[in-house]
Amino acid sequence: MTTKELLIKAKNAKALVNTISTEKINEALNAMAQALIDNTEDILRKNAEDIEKARGTVSDVMIDRLALSEERIKGMADGVRDVAKLPSPVGKVLKSNEPQPGLIIEKTSVPLGVVAIIYESRPNVTSDAAALALKSGNVCVLRCGKEAHQSASAIVEALQKGLESAGLSKDLVLLVEDTTRQSATELMTADGCVDLLIPRGGKGLISACVKNATVPVIQTGTGICHIFVDESADIDMALNIVENAKTSRPSVCNAEEVLVVHKNIAGEFLPKLKERLVDSRAENPVELRLDEEAIKIIDGTPAGENDFDTEFLDYILAVKIVDSAAEAVSHINTHSTGHSEAIVTASGESAELFTKGIDSSSVYVNASTRFTDGGEFGLGCEMGISTQKLHARGPMGLEELNTYKYIIRGNGHVR
Amino acid sequence: MTTKELLIKAKNAKALVNTISTEKINEALNAMAQALIDNTEDILRKNAEDIEKARGTVSDVMIDRLALSEERIKGMADGVRDVAKLPSPVGKVLKSNEPQPGLIIEKTSVPLGVVAIIYESRPNVTSDAAALALKSGNVCVLRCGKEAHQSASAIVEALQKGLESAGLSKDLVLLVEDTTRQSATELMTADGCVDLLIPRGGKGLISACVKNATVPVIQTGTGICHIFVDESADIDMALNIVENAKTSRPSVCNAEEVLVVHKNIAGEFLPKLKERLVDSRAENPVELRLDEEAIKIIDGTPAGENDFDTEFLDYILAVKIVDSAAEAVSHINTHSTGHSEAIVTASGESAELFTKGIDSSSVYVNASTRFTDGGEFGLGCEMGISTQKLHARGPMGLEELNTYKYIIRGNGHVR
Repeated sequence: MTTKELLIKAKNAKALVNTISTEKINEALNAMAQALIDNTEDILRKNAEDIEKARGTVSDVMIDRLALSEERIKGMADGVRDVAKLPSPVGKVLKSNEPQPGLIIEKTSVPLGVVAIIYESRPNVTSDAAALALKSGNVCVLRCGKEAHQSASAIVEALQKGLESAGLSKDLVLLVEDTTRQSATELMTADGCVDLLIPRGGKGLISACVKNATVPVIQTGTGICHIFVDESADIDMALNIVENAKTSRPSVCNAEEVLVVHKNIAGEFLPKLKERLVDSRAENPVELRLDEEAIKIIDGTPAGENDFDTEFLDYILAVKIVDSAAEAVSHINTHSTGHSEAIVTASGESAELFTKGIDSSSVYVNASTRFTDGGEFGLGCEMGISTQKLHARGPMGLEELNTYKYIIRGNGHVR
Repeated sequence: MTTKELLIKAKNAKALVNTISTEKINEALNAMAQALIDNTEDILRKNAEDIEKARGTVSDVMIDRLALSEERIKGMADGVRDVAKLPSPVGKVLKSNEPQPGLIIEKTSVPLGVVAIIYESRPNVTSDAAALALKSGNVCVLRCGKEAHQSASAIVEALQKGLESAGLSKDLVLLVEDTTRQSATELMTADGCVDLLIPRGGKGLISACVKNATVPVIQTGTGICHIFVDESADIDMALNIVENAKTSRPSVCNAEEVLVVHKNIAGEFLPKLKERLVDSRAENPVELRLDEEAIKIIDGTPAGENDFDTEFLDYILAVKIVDSAAEAVSHINTHSTGHSEAIVTASGESAELFTKGIDSSSVYVNASTRFTDGGEFGLGCEMGISTQKLHARGPMGLEELNTYKYIIRGNGHVR
């Protein structure tokens, strides 16, 4: 099936999905989860083929991301069942008014329509994204990287069996067959057919989508997250938060990449930081990349030109000294990707300056940036973390996969 | 001042606006309204220059749009005072949760930042847009068509006097000096500086923005609105609604352009429609453009190729006969601009099919499409009517000029 044919199928399925009850959608999600379990053998066989082909051409980290196991498939099925348990976002009356007697205006949440997801080599994104899209009343068009295509095919086949066993059309979850660049371009320019495109993956993929897409896009994921240690910070608290944000899982988007330190506390704080992040760590000591002022206080790598604009996703931390909280805010707003930033401070005034002034999705006072996550934020799930301001900002859950429309009921009302 | 310099001013002013209280903003809005009154003479003089220059080169309708009077300026000032009276959308806690004791996550409404508006020849848009942007905590960058530039300059000067008399920076409301295409392009591509671009005007302007902008855009205004007269419709109600939607103000975006009629009622309904919209109207009879089936029932112009895809904004109505409500929904979803559509029906089933199936911002049952308006919808005001699905759909008020961020307060919390 060509991508164009598949997009027509998706558009037609959109009309169907509006008429399906929440109960039926939940029944289908549970059937999809069961189908994943029932087809474990087939999925693992196809996954082994993907791994066989990829070995030698991609990194070990990528092979690990690609590899499935019985346990991982069980985890995917559990994830789909968890989505079935969440409340449906569809059909909520968000607001209503009656400007004239008998003329009732209701602002009502409705699905976006066709949601396309372009992702890379994690096969589990296939079932995650499909479950979230379906639960929020959307038709899902998936396009995965070529490394994971066999695995994704087997997963989608299982999900479609689940849909059909619940009496629903298998066209509600579709996988693009073509894995060349052309199919990505076709999705990006499928005006009038794709209602939302979500790229999930590296910086290159996301910027290609933002640049080339004519359909609506939500940018996700890139996180150059900052922590500012204010002059009044509790030093132990600051050390704990920085250590957690930098080292607990450096490969994720809510990990810290840049540390900003007030000059009045730098002399005391930086040596303790070096002790905590470098000297006392037997495994994975952090490489500190220090600006001109910081390097006068502790040893480390002199920061290069790009170090304050890089998502390291590694045990590397750029360090900058500033003269004031206002300078910290200004530096962060210039260099951040708008994901997550934190201040450690004992001053209410600095905290307010920071929370008001920082132009990012998630702004922390005395807590680690690592909490930016759909689960932690009470959304129950996560389709990605938006770094833009329109529509959805920060973790995107089911509500963010809906739009609204006004439904107006009258009795012959004219204006 | 070049457009680049002006955009830097706007970006710097964004940091200021976060620290201004709602009381101060309201004080400034009232001072701006007073300044419009106080500078009436100057504004009228500049407006006369614009009109002098434009006369002969643009239509009379455009001259009328351009022309100000003492009364119109008073109306603009009243509009600004009305905005001062509306509740502020900024800083509302939209949701909160506490995933761990003492870790408080608040989803909080915040201004977008810099809102740019590109508009054409209506000078009153200058004060309307500035007031809405300021009230919602945004810095406003205005760029008007060259025909209205003198008028807009005089209005912005007055508004800036008002800002300064309230002790605020005049950079909160800025007018682009360059009226060539270059300045529009600069706004469309001011990434990292313009947080939202709203084009207000004709189809050409809007599609140029959607196509060329790399900054976030909200499409407004184009309305190919449909009314579907179902087989069970009350014929008098249908006639009243169609007459109102087509003829009460044909030049606006919520006016009806296409009438869709169920075949089972067409034989009775269409002759009455012709009597109401054509024969009995001494002034401005409506030109009916009829499809092949309709023209078998009444006289009229045969519909041409583009008549079902045209925003006439005139006393012209395209008429199509369909076999079912489902066919009506499918035709409308294919040809609509996503603005406003109505069904006239006595059937609950058809009403549900229509409200669920139609993919537009505002879907009416037994009421005229003319109600799609910020005031009628209870928003108190209107920056435009969005025809897209992301962020804002339908009439945009103050809330739609805000985004949100998560503010998370902890006490040393790590994950």
